[in-house]
Amino acid sequence: MIPHPAYDVDPWRLVESALEPDMLPQSESVFALSNGHIGWRGNLDEGEPHGLPGTYLNGVHEIRPLPHAEAGYGYPESGQTILNVSNGKLIRLLVDDEPFDIRYGVVHAHRRELDFRTGLLDRQVEWESPAGQVVRVRSQRLVSFTHRAIAAIRYEVEAVGEPARIVLQSELVANEQLPVGNGDPRASAMLHDALVSEDHGSRPNGAYLVHHTRRSEIRVGAGMVHTIDGPEKREITSDSAADLGRTTVAVVLQPGEKLTLVKYVAYGWSGRRSLPAVRDQVAAALVAAHRAGWDGLRTEQREFLDQFWTNADIQLDGDPELQQGLRFGLFHVLQASARSEGRAVPAKGLTGPGYDGHTFWDAETFVLPVLTLTYPEATKHALRWRHSTLPSALDRARQLGFAGAAFPWRTIDGAECSGYWPAGTAALHVNADIADAVVNYCRVTDDQDFAGGLGMDIVTQTARLWMSVGHRGRDGEFRIDGITGPDEYSAIADNNVYTNLMAQQNLRAAAQLAKRFPGRAKELDISAAEAAGWAAAADAMYVPYDEKIGVHPQSDGFTRHQFWDFANTGPEHYPLLLHFPYLDLYRKQVVKQADLVLAMQQYPEAFTAAQKARNFAYYEAITVRDSSLSAGTQAAIAAEVGHLELAYDYLAEATLMDLRDLEHNTSDGLHIAALASGWNAMVAGFGGLRVGDECVSFAPRLPPALTGFAFRVCVRGTPLRVEVRADSVRYTALDGQPTCVRHHGETITLEPDTPVTMPIPPLPEVAPVHQPPGREPSRRRPIR
Amino acid sequence: MIPHPAYDVDPWRLVESALEPDMLPQSESVFALSNGHIGWRGNLDEGEPHGLPGTYLNGVHEIRPLPHAEAGYGYPESGQTILNVSNGKLIRLLVDDEPFDIRYGVVHAHRRELDFRTGLLDRQVEWESPAGQVVRVRSQRLVSFTHRAIAAIRYEVEAVGEPARIVLQSELVANEQLPVGNGDPRASAMLHDALVSEDHGSRPNGAYLVHHTRRSEIRVGAGMVHTIDGPEKREITSDSAADLGRTTVAVVLQPGEKLTLVKYVAYGWSGRRSLPAVRDQVAAALVAAHRAGWDGLRTEQREFLDQFWTNADIQLDGDPELQQGLRFGLFHVLQASARSEGRAVPAKGLTGPGYDGHTFWDAETFVLPVLTLTYPEATKHALRWRHSTLPSALDRARQLGFAGAAFPWRTIDGAECSGYWPAGTAALHVNADIADAVVNYCRVTDDQDFAGGLGMDIVTQTARLWMSVGHRGRDGEFRIDGITGPDEYSAIADNNVYTNLMAQQNLRAAAQLAKRFPGRAKELDISAAEAAGWAAAADAMYVPYDEKIGVHPQSDGFTRHQFWDFANTGPEHYPLLLHFPYLDLYRKQVVKQADLVLAMQQYPEAFTAAQKARNFAYYEAITVRDSSLSAGTQAAIAAEVGHLELAYDYLAEATLMDLRDLEHNTSDGLHIAALASGWNAMVAGFGGLRVGDECVSFAPRLPPALTGFAFRVCVRGTPLRVEVRADSVRYTALDGQPTCVRHHGETITLEPDTPVTMPIPPLPEVAPVHQPPGREPSRRRPIR
Repeated sequence: MIPHPAYDVDPWRLVESALEPDMLPQSESVFALSNGHIGWRGNLDEGEPHGLPGTYLNGVHEIRPLPHAEAGYGYPESGQTILNVSNGKLIRLLVDDEPFDIRYGVVHAHRRELDFRTGLLDRQVEWESPAGQVVRVRSQRLVSFTHRAIAAIRYEVEAVGEPARIVLQSELVANEQLPVGNGDPRASAMLHDALVSEDHGSRPNGAYLVHHTRRSEIRVGAGMVHTIDGPEKREITSDSAADLGRTTVAVVLQPGEKLTLVKYVAYGWSGRRSLPAVRDQVAAALVAAHRAGWDGLRTEQREFLDQFWTNADIQLDGDPELQQGLRFGLFHVLQASARSEGRAVPAKGLTGPGYDGHTFWDAETFVLPVLTLTYPEATKHALRWRHSTLPSALDRARQLGFAGAAFPWRTIDGAECSGYWPAGTAALHVNADIADAVVNYCRVTDDQDFAGGLGMDIVTQTARLWMSVGHRGRDGEFRIDGITGPDEYSAIADNNVYTNLMAQQNLRAAAQLAKRFPGRAKELDISAAEAAGWAAAADAMYVPYDEKIGVHPQSDGFTRHQFWDFANTGPEHYPLLLHFPYLDLYRKQVVKQADLVLAMQQYPEAFTAAQKARNFAYYEAITVRDSSLSAGTQAAIAAEVGHLELAYDYLAEATLMDLRDLEHNTSDGLHIAALASGWNAMVAGFGGLRVGDECVSFAPRLPPALTGFAFRVCVRGTPLRVEVRADSVRYTALDGQPTCVRHHGETITLEPDTPVTMPIPPLPEVAPVHQPPGREPSRRRPIR
Repeated sequence: MIPHPAYDVDPWRLVESALEPDMLPQSESVFALSNGHIGWRGNLDEGEPHGLPGTYLNGVHEIRPLPHAEAGYGYPESGQTILNVSNGKLIRLLVDDEPFDIRYGVVHAHRRELDFRTGLLDRQVEWESPAGQVVRVRSQRLVSFTHRAIAAIRYEVEAVGEPARIVLQSELVANEQLPVGNGDPRASAMLHDALVSEDHGSRPNGAYLVHHTRRSEIRVGAGMVHTIDGPEKREITSDSAADLGRTTVAVVLQPGEKLTLVKYVAYGWSGRRSLPAVRDQVAAALVAAHRAGWDGLRTEQREFLDQFWTNADIQLDGDPELQQGLRFGLFHVLQASARSEGRAVPAKGLTGPGYDGHTFWDAETFVLPVLTLTYPEATKHALRWRHSTLPSALDRARQLGFAGAAFPWRTIDGAECSGYWPAGTAALHVNADIADAVVNYCRVTDDQDFAGGLGMDIVTQTARLWMSVGHRGRDGEFRIDGITGPDEYSAIADNNVYTNLMAQQNLRAAAQLAKRFPGRAKELDISAAEAAGWAAAADAMYVPYDEKIGVHPQSDGFTRHQFWDFANTGPEHYPLLLHFPYLDLYRKQVVKQADLVLAMQQYPEAFTAAQKARNFAYYEAITVRDSSLSAGTQAAIAAEVGHLELAYDYLAEATLMDLRDLEHNTSDGLHIAALASGWNAMVAGFGGLRVGDECVSFAPRLPPALTGFAFRVCVRGTPLRVEVRADSVRYTALDGQPTCVRHHGETITLEPDTPVTMPIPPLPEVAPVHQPPGREPSRRRPIR
């Protein structure tokens, strides 16, 4: 496999050593900086050329009508879409009156590095203007993990060869012109002139803008201050207008002389606070940042990341590219969530406008399990956000005729924004997924306050939902009819195995919490009968099984459907949803993304080893992976049932989703859940990690491509290090309490700082599996 | 039951003896005149007050975008909507400069009569102007069955008491202002200023307008000429403008003196012909109408209707209101279809803009069976129209990935206009319904040319569709998965019994036609193997049956679903689709309209008598009749299985659908299929008529409410009269050939004009059935 031409392989950095203008849209996403609160796409400092300018604030969105050709009861009438807010990244450079623009003149050198340990995006460029003046520019950019309202840029320009007349314009620009959309329903609906100016102002070294959104009525403030270093003789002015704040610095640089500008940018936003409150909040954040200074911000950033990697690092021996990819993925998972306090983790993080900036089940199912084991504070924040939307979810359930809470399929602020109910509202599993994330977080962290508090609220209300969605069949079985599972190439089916099993877990967890926290149970009006009903429904949960072929049908009747005609489906027909009607897809055995296979990962006890192997082989043959959410799960189960090479191929696919732009839409933002699922493929797949009620279990296997790998997870506050070699695994609890884990089914207790080495049992024999023709994952051959 | 206050009971006429302004919207629909080519709503001559002005030309529509909140492959991007074209009904009257307007002054008398034998709408009104001048106005209106481009009005005004200065303005008005829609998705999307003027002109006694539609590019011409009778001293002028043609007559009438104006209105339209061609076509039609004169048009109208009623009349002894209702229904079925040559029969006929003027499966399933037995020329025209859309249907099938033809769920010109695919495109049964109408027409008429010609094209291409939609299951059974049956409270289910049985008939018919017309089979590339495949698939057709409860599930798994909570569904929650999400409806056992019960009517041989009784009882308990298409079918099967009183209640509901405005939307146009299903309830229900391969069978039963009933049908050119009394039936073949029929299973041969009387066997005993609480049909107690 040839490494991607645009990026160099490096264990701790993403490096671009040549600028390819066609790659700008993707590189803006992969070089995006975020702390989960503020997101800056990796746009060039000077703004142009660009694929898509992007400055996002978590939760800042606009409302747009959702039109329906034929309306129906309960359809959402308006949607939400993430907004590109005031751009504080902009630093325009004029060299002898010529705008610095790489489309003109000559670029002698270009290099960008995103360092996963420092959290800095570093850019170095040497450019010769059309008039022949050479300058060197170095910019370093960060979005602070420790000052969550702050981003900062250190910008340095040096004259080379000849003296140069330099003008820097450091700007805040609102209502930037955006490229016209391409009509892909998955891309964002662009909104123009969405920000209405309320106030603006400037002082000598900075400026601020306050706007509000037209319909969603969110007030957004942005401000900047600068410190400037360079020749004594310089002119600094600032000005502002409705959509523009600008600080201008003019100097003449002698050859070798540098002008250095540090720009601190702060954002504040609120749907409730007044204009002065938001304006002052921005000013205060700027004062704090200015006081910390560039070096202070940089140091704090490094310390924050050092701490993160101490708990979360993953090491591969023998595949430098995947090593880079996995760290890249973890870094972006962290960026999407670290400081998203009170807000969602969107499917694209804050790296682009894809999926309108919405959050889906992805967050709870794919992203939070990674964070729970590596940075549990972020999981807690994300679940707190979900909890904050419980009133909306209770309302929505009532509107749909259900009890309890029905969380939205896609949303920014908690209101359902799905315009196509069979693959939106009908995918009720999102509710069990959320409950599962709560249970998983509580198991791993032992956070009793959360379990008996916000967590119990969520688990209780989703259990109530299931009781009203399901019903008892004539044989007493608990059935969940007419809903949609994870696979979006099927819809509105009875007894989706994934959903039924997840609902079963949800009901059991609710019953257990009611027992554990009787006081809270009383507050929540949970009678003994209600809790007993949950447990009984869980016990009676119907799980269809096709005896004749020894396979679990994804839903009732699924294995009786016609097989998709893969032989006559050429590569140009993928993704299928863009070339075939749902009518055709839903009727046939073709799977967009792991569904039954995901059930086997999420609820391993519900399947025997033999069933897992048979099910995996069956679904492997009909799964086309038209979703980025599939490969990581297929990797995990492939590894579990013994297909180690195949698992490794899927691991690579998930991990390189965005670095290789495998779905051709990285330009709209990164696939945060797919990146998380790469980590999952490694840790749950080759590490065999499963979180149980009592302890965490491992079942490591070394993929043939590697000579070894190691990862860290943090269980009940204790960091565990797991080092895997071909024949053995070394477990170390770093500090903390004695910790009990399982190794391939055997329980062991880890004393602090006392490694235990365990042998790896032989791999079970499995018959080869196959994928639909042309849909095999690329064979991963690491370059050593 | 109290007769509707607005209309008087009369066996051959609809009579309104008082004007209730609130009832205008409905009365405009019930008093609408049409010949299937031109439709005039029953607006008052003077235009105002009105519910909705309506002048429709079959096929004249505008295109409007179909917005989708989330787009999908194969979704139609534009829809079609029927247009209100130039209004030629308008005759404004000024009495001493005061506009005649019933909202002012005093109405001393008002009477409107629609006579089903003359085809005239007669209006008599005596009005006193605010200034105290009294006038009598009588207008008679017809839309000619024999001159299909012509409508005409005879308008007479008489001064009462004092001399009156009278001005008549007879007009053509384009782009009338329409009331704003109420947002009900079922009502038409109103389009304003849809007509663009191309030409206009006037001559002393008339005027014309030519417009084209903005997007669909249909050219529409309208013209009028007048003959005037009255005082010698009168002034007549005409003028025209872009959207107005006007002829003005001014006279002074002495008390008792009358002014009489006959207005001939002609329409011509085309998507292809030039402006002069359309203009001249209108002028030519006017010349012919003028030559026939008012008396000539009236006489031809009467002759046409006398002939119709000779073949089609239905008589009830003991229920005058239903007698009126059944003739009202048949009259409107005829009006919707008689001269629709080359165009569809819309769901509302040409009586209103409801459902955007679209045609659905209603036409073939409910309307054409009536016409086939009473006025088969109309069926032939309607099927010719379907055939003309075969190219669109072949294209649509290819787009959907199917072989053969996929006819649209709703359309005006043959292109799919359904904006919600689960209850639109997925309802593939429409294709078998169309094939069934072909087969039924051919059986009843023995029209060999049609059978081996256009009919065979349709039946062949729909059979090919089924072969590609269905597939062989692992036991060799032929399955049709993931489609939607007639019941719109379920969708996307496997093996809908109705659809599977209808597809089975379609496949068998195709195989038989291929055998009967080998030359045409060759033209259509039907190999022996293909035809054998159709027969084999039909033989292997899977029909699910729930052994445990002895009932056919509507679709796989249906009888395992949760029952709808009828006990907690109040009357204010109907129709359910406006109060509950599809997500909830689809998951549960609740039926909007006959589905499995319709299957039992359409394919009686597929069920035993005991199964029919059990199935009927089962579905009766869960069918809410939120569709106007249900009651007639429930009546037919209720009568068959022995619930005669219940059948009569349903008969009344179907028949009085519009006269009583039972669905509260008669204002948007009549429910033509429901009216047809009233006839069906009588003839297929109490008459027990079924059309078999070899002969027509009857199984009459007298409903307890009646002392007798009689009906006529026309089989292979021979009119049959069936007279039913409590214990016996008298069959008479009027003229024609000896005809073989079945009476309660016994074959008898009818010699021309030789009545045969047969006894009625005793009624089988059946256990009572029940409906969902509150959804029982009104108990019908006829007023003797």
